Formats: sequence, structure tokens, C-alpha cells
Amino acid sequence: MLPESSERAALVRRRELLAHALGSAPAVIASGRPRPRNYAADQFPFRASSHFLYLFGLAAQDGLGFYDGQAWTLYLPEPGADDALWDGAVPGFAEVAERTGCPVRSRAELPSVLASARMTRAVATLPTPDLETCLDVEALLGRQVRPGKLLPVDEPLAEAMVALRLRHDDAAVAQLRRAAEATTPAHLAGMRATRPGVLEAAVRAAMEAEFVVRDVRPAYQPIVTVHGEVLHNLKYHHVLREGDLLLADVGGESPGGFACDVTRTWPVTGRFSTTQRELYEVVLRAQKASIALVRPGVGYRDVHLAAHREMARGLVALGILRGDVEELVADGLTALLFPHGIGHLMGLDVHDMEDLGDRAGYAPGRTRSKEFGHRYLRLDRDLEPGMAVTIEPGLYRVPGILEDAGLTARAGDRLKRDVLARYSDVRGIRIEDDVLVTADGCEVLTAAIPKEASDVEAVMARR
Amino acid sequence: MLPESSERAALVRRRELLAHALGSAPAVIASGRPRPRNYAADQFPFRASSHFLYLFGLAAQDGLGFYDGQAWTLYLPEPGADDALWDGAVPGFAEVAERTGCPVRSRAELPSVLASARMTRAVATLPTPDLETCLDVEALLGRQVRPGKLLPVDEPLAEAMVALRLRHDDAAVAQLRRAAEATTPAHLAGMRATRPGVLEAAVRAAMEAEFVVRDVRPAYQPIVTVHGEVLHNLKYHHVLREGDLLLADVGGESPGGFACDVTRTWPVTGRFSTTQRELYEVVLRAQKASIALVRPGVGYRDVHLAAHREMARGLVALGILRGDVEELVADGLTALLFPHGIGHLMGLDVHDMEDLGDRAGYAPGRTRSKEFGHRYLRLDRDLEPGMAVTIEPGLYRVPGILEDAGLTARAGDRLKRDVLARYSDVRGIRIEDDVLVTADGCEVLTAAIPKEASDVEAVMARR
Repeated sequence: MLPESSERAALVRRRELLAHALGSAPAVIASGRPRPRNYAADQFPFRASSHFLYLFGLAAQDGLGFYDGQAWTLYLPEPGADDALWDGAVPGFAEVAERTGCPVRSRAELPSVLASARMTRAVATLPTPDLETCLDVEALLGRQVRPGKLLPVDEPLAEAMVALRLRHDDAAVAQLRRAAEATTPAHLAGMRATRPGVLEAAVRAAMEAEFVVRDVRPAYQPIVTVHGEVLHNLKYHHVLREGDLLLADVGGESPGGFACDVTRTWPVTGRFSTTQRELYEVVLRAQKASIALVRPGVGYRDVHLAAHREMARGLVALGILRGDVEELVADGLTALLFPHGIGHLMGLDVHDMEDLGDRAGYAPGRTRSKEFGHRYLRLDRDLEPGMAVTIEPGLYRVPGILEDAGLTARAGDRLKRDVLARYSDVRGIRIEDDVLVTADGCEVLTAAIPKEASDVEAVMARR
Repeated sequence: MLPESSERAALVRRRELLAHALGSAPAVIASGRPRPRNYAADQFPFRASSHFLYLFGLAAQDGLGFYDGQAWTLYLPEPGADDALWDGAVPGFAEVAERTGCPVRSRAELPSVLASARMTRAVATLPTPDLETCLDVEALLGRQVRPGKLLPVDEPLAEAMVALRLRHDDAAVAQLRRAAEATTPAHLAGMRATRPGVLEAAVRAAMEAEFVVRDVRPAYQPIVTVHGEVLHNLKYHHVLREGDLLLADVGGESPGGFACDVTRTWPVTGRFSTTQRELYEVVLRAQKASIALVRPGVGYRDVHLAAHREMARGLVALGILRGDVEELVADGLTALLFPHGIGHLMGLDVHDMEDLGDRAGYAPGRTRSKEFGHRYLRLDRDLEPGMAVTIEPGLYRVPGILEDAGLTARAGDRLKRDVLARYSDVRGIRIEDDVLVTADGCEVLTAAIPKEASDVEAVMARR
């Protein structure tokens, strides 16, 4: 629950930077409450809001950080009489103050403190994803607070937070590395647990066990499926068959709440078939071409388009597409097989700061494309040192797309359906790494997870 | 997501019985929405509200069952344009209608249907645990809807639902059995994974993997701890040491959402020490004495008190308590070591229908005790055939209780602290089974999970 001692300096620094950006404008950042599963006492595991974690590193329920225009104070609930019996001892205020570097006071004092603060001016906040806490903060601040909705007074706070969280400091990078370290054994275990005849659930179990045994939480609901063509497939009931590819999009969360997001695709038999290998190599080359572009100053949209171009080249070489690479991309033919964006920001959220809409993902003046396959691009900024992004091209045979007359109209005879039909043992391939932009290039944080076809096969050969 | 075909008749029957109880009074039962973890798209696994699952057996998001005073209709959202790409195909309305035995219409039609219905009279509902859905239903019904809060118009619906869900029908019993079947391998795996030097998390991982591999969800956050004296301990970071007891309170959920709730306590070495064994046998005898009482017509509070009496006898025999058994119980001495209730209702919720407050747990006219150790009793009804309850006595050395001068004042010299101190290798023991009340006695649904000390040791000897 407490941040590690080594993180104190970073937490103090983040709050100082945010205070500097805010000037004399007051702000409240709430941690949120556990969310009930079917009744109040049966709860999902508590996850504090990412903004709160960023500033205080503390997984405290119902905490509020208040910046009064001059300094930060952390307000925490005092334990109830029976809490220790049911939930165990919690760290005292003095210990929390020591670890976070922030004075701590009782949550009960907050209403009067805020009531006097808001007499002068409106208090900014960033709404938590849980409506319960929003309504609480709404009452405290005397203004509307709803998930995903910012008022004008919140805009400078949101912009300042985006500016801070966009470029990871050393403490954040350390957390991203730990999330990646926890994710590596999960993917290796998944490859080793894969064999014909078991359920997708069996592979998921082997992967998640590597998190649980390390007391690590999954950063998002894992995707472990032989139907990779359903992009966010959360079902695990299919039996693995020879000839299937298994797509696993599974990432862990660091102790401080930072995410890892990795996808690998491997053959159920342990050996890629010729057709699987051909398409796998197309995706892998597209992924490498994109990663090779990642460095400060490069536009992420160009990284996205580079993947499309590389994929077009590969698909032309296989005879699945015919025509000029640039035209194939421009006319949306690659998007028919690669219908999502090349990736997104990474940090405390898997899609970092998506709670603030496109404010984090899209640079001022840039907006989402209307084009199929490009409108899902979640990030359109020029890359800067300290940014972390995913690079995750994919290639999918989605019946709903390929049979859609409207979507495929412009393809004409440039999409060779007879050739594509030969790749019937491929439904979905995605290869995803987390990449940190460095001063003069980039570093793949998830490089320890095998992705060369031969490396994947070598891991599976040792099953 | 769909109920099994064999469940259709039970679902129809439940809705008929509820309709009969409601007469011409209209009612809405909502399924709820997935709950965001840190931003809208990063969600906890969806769990439909238990009342909705009871009537429709369907894990559909944002569904509403509407009883218009004559018949039930199920309103479901129509899939969005891109849903199939991201989330896969969902069953069509015709298939849902076939499986649930209930006509299905588009959720979009509901506002006008409800607007005309509520012109005549207020519509009853049972609030979902998520506030978002409550506010939605509030807008639909034009009346306040808040989690855990019933209006007078809702009372007859709540009473009718309690009357139905209190006594499980055959389909519900079948689900309870499936939840128990999924829980057995988890506990066996936990015993086998236990050894000195590993983390609590490693045992948890082995237990949860047995759920995940079967595509089963945990019915509640698992407790796997060497600090059993913290009753709802949700930390997993301690290293298991020789001399520790490990307490595991872990249960799975059936496909239809019914819960299992089982606790076992086993020695890290695989062999109970003499002191551990002595206290373990006290708890086990108390548990068996309570189960032996479970039959129609018996008051659950008497089952609770029987455990206290049996525990008093055992503790007197060990010299930990001194005095008359009845007086020791009446004066709260056993409650110092067994501070919680003997158990609770079981069903779709681990604490069944706890969302309705004590309406389900407490028979009309009965209220919670003010006494320490007895005020946590969650059920005070006369048992009836078809009820399912847990029987879960425990024995804990809780410093916060034993060092509390107020709580221990009445104990005087009847609590032999010097004798209790000899049991320093016991911090917490709990033994919990799920018990179904039958026509003339009871059936232990979780009997396949070893609890005799010798059986536990035999499982662990085969590690």
C-alpha cells in the first residue's frame, strides 16, 4: 500500500512540478473507492486512481490530495473501530507522511477546509472512474464532478497533468521496467502450457499464475484466444487445436500501479505452418520497421503509417494484395487486415490517461481520422524522450470486415481473396512491445519476451 | 453468457412465482454495467446483478427485466456497429428469448414503455450495486434509485425476492454443487503447493489456477494467509515458515453465478504440531456439532451458540478457559477467541442477498445483537428445506481483542493467558463448509474437501 522509500523524492518532485504549473489555483485529486462486485462487501480488488498514484504512490482508499494554491496535504480516513479485526492494521498517518513526503491529516477535516477554500474560487479536480467518489467530491467541492467529464476550471489541471505524465521520470521508468519483468515469465509460461486439446483457459491459468505467485496484478483483462480476429476477445472456452494460432495479450502491473502491455502469437503445435510463418513474418517486419522509427521528433502517426506500408509490401510479396504500396495504404486496403492503431501511450494506465479523452493522446490541433482502420489510432503526437508507447501491428482475417461490401468496395481486384483463402490457418496475429523513447532513439522494455519465430519455437520445443 | 437449456424451466418458474407475488405491481430488475478499473475501457470482469441472474440466468450488460403487472419482458441493448470487431458476436434476441423463455425487445424501446407504465403507478426495483446503473434506472423510473436503499414501493418486491431466493430450487442447488465441485481442486492444489519458504501468493496462485483453468471465477477475493487472525486478510506477501498455519478462505462461482465459500486451515510443514492439533480439533468439533444441528425448524442462532458451547468445552478441557460452559458463552469469553458469526446464507451472493440489508438474514422481528462476537451474526432465521448456509467457526488469537481491557474485563481469571500463550504457533484457524438444509436434515455440499486433520496431512504427505 505504501510507496517504497526510494520513490519519495520522485513523488515530492511530481507534486512540486504540478504545483508550479497550477500556481495559486487549488486542486483536489481523489484516490477513489473499491468497487462492489455484487453487493457492498464483495468487492473487486481496490485500484487507486492513476492520478492519485502518480502524485502519492499510495494505494489508499478514499484518500484525497488537496493543493490549496500553496502546498499539498493528503487527507486520509481514520480507521474504524473494527477495521483492524477484519482488515488488519494500516500504516499510521506519520508513516504515510514519511513515505510520501506529504503532510497527512484526517479526512474528517476536509469538508471544512474545502468549504473555506471554495469560498474564494472553484477547485479543480480530475474525476475518478467511480461515480460514487465523483459524487462525494462533487459534494465537497460544490460543483459537478462526473467520470470522464471536465469543467473549464479543470482544464489547466488536466493539461498540467498530461504534460507531467507524458514523459516518464526515472521512478516511473523503473516501475515500467518492473511491470515488464513480471510479464516476461507469464508469456514464457503461456508458450510452455500450450498444447492441442487443452482450453484457452489452461494457458491463461499458467500465465496468470506467474502474476499471482509474484503478488502482481494483471494490468488489464487478459486476452488468450485462438480467435485473435476478435480484437478484445475475453472468452477462454475454446479447445486448442493443431493448426490454431494462439494470441495472448497479457500484461502485469508494477507495485506502484504502472502497466505492461504485451502481445505474442504462437502456434498451438509449437511450430508455425508455412502459411502462418509467412503472415507472422509480415507482421513482425512491420513491427520492427515501426520500432526502428521511434525516436524524439518523429510523429507517431508516421510510425503507424510505416507499419501499414511495411505490411503492404509483405502482402504484395505474398500475392495477397496487388498494386502500389502507397496507394494500397491510402486506399485503406491494409486497414482491411490491420484495422486498429499501431498503439498508444503507456504508463499508469494501459491506455495512459485515456480518462482525459484524447487530450493526452492527441497533440493540440490534431484530431482523429474518420477513416476505417485509422480512427482507432489512440496517439498522434510527436515523440519525446521519456514517452512510452506500444508498437502493436496485427493482421486479422475478420469476416465482418472482409464480407462488408462498403468497407471492401475500394479494394476492387487488388485484394486477392483466392490467395488470402490459402491462409486459412491464420485468424489473427498481433505482436506488441512496450517502447520507451530515449534521448536519441528508443528502448524496447519488453525485449526479453521472445518474438522471433525461431525463438518462440525454441521455447515451445522445451515444453 | 446464455443460461443452459436445462435451466429454462427454472427461470420461467421463478419469474412466474415472482409475478404471482407481485400481482399487478410493476417491477424492473437491472443487470448492471461493467465497472471501470482505472478508466472507462479498462474494466473489471462483468458480473450481472444477482437478482437479474436469478430471473434470467443471463450475464448481459445493461439489460433490464420489466414486469408490467402481467408479464415479463427482457430489454437488451442492440450491438453497436463496431462491437463485433472488438468484442465478438453476441447471441441474437431470438436465441436469448429461446434460452430464457422470455420475450426480448430492444433496450431503446424501454424509456417509452416505462414512461407510460409509471403514469399509472410507481415501479418497484432492487438497486444494483453500481451507482451508474442506479442513476440510469432512476431516470427511467422517475424516482430515486440508490445502491442499498429501498423505497417503500420496493419493499414488496424485496420481500418476494427474499422469499424466493431463501429456499433454493433444484436448478439453484445444481449450481451450488457445481461451484463446490470447482472449489475442491483449488483447496487440494493449495495444500499441495504449501511448503516453507514460498510466499502466501504462491499458494494463492496454485489455488486460483484451478479456477482459471476451468474458466471459473472466484466468488470473492481469496484469503490465503498465515495471519488468519485478521479475518478478511487480503495480503499475500508473507513467506510461509515452519510452524505457521495457513488459512485459505477460497471459493469459486458456478457458470450461473452461484457461489461456494470454503475455508480450510493447514500446517505449512504438512503436520500439525501438538498445540496446533489441539486447537484445530476444538474448532473441528465445534463445526461438526453445529452441522449436526442443521435441519428444518432449528434456529440458526442456536447453531451459532452450539458452536460457542462446544468451543467452550474444548477450551476448558485444554485449560485455556475455566468455568461453567454456559456462563463462559453468556459472558462472552468464547467470543474473545471466536469473534464472528457461525456463518451466513449462501446462494448467488457469498453473503446471499446482503444487498437487501438484514431483510434476508434476519427473520421478521429479529434484530442484531449488540454483544461483541454476536453482532456479526449475519443470519437469524429458523432453517427451512432448500436454504444453504455456511458453518464456519474459527479460533483466533487477535492481539487487538486480547489486549483490549474493555472487551476482556468480564473474563477475569477465567481466561488463562499463560495456558493460551503456549499455543503461540496458532494465530487463526477457521473451518468452513457450505451446508444445504434438506427435508429431514442437511447435506454438506463441500464434503469432498478434506478437513479431518489426518486427511489434510495425508493430502500434504503426497506433495
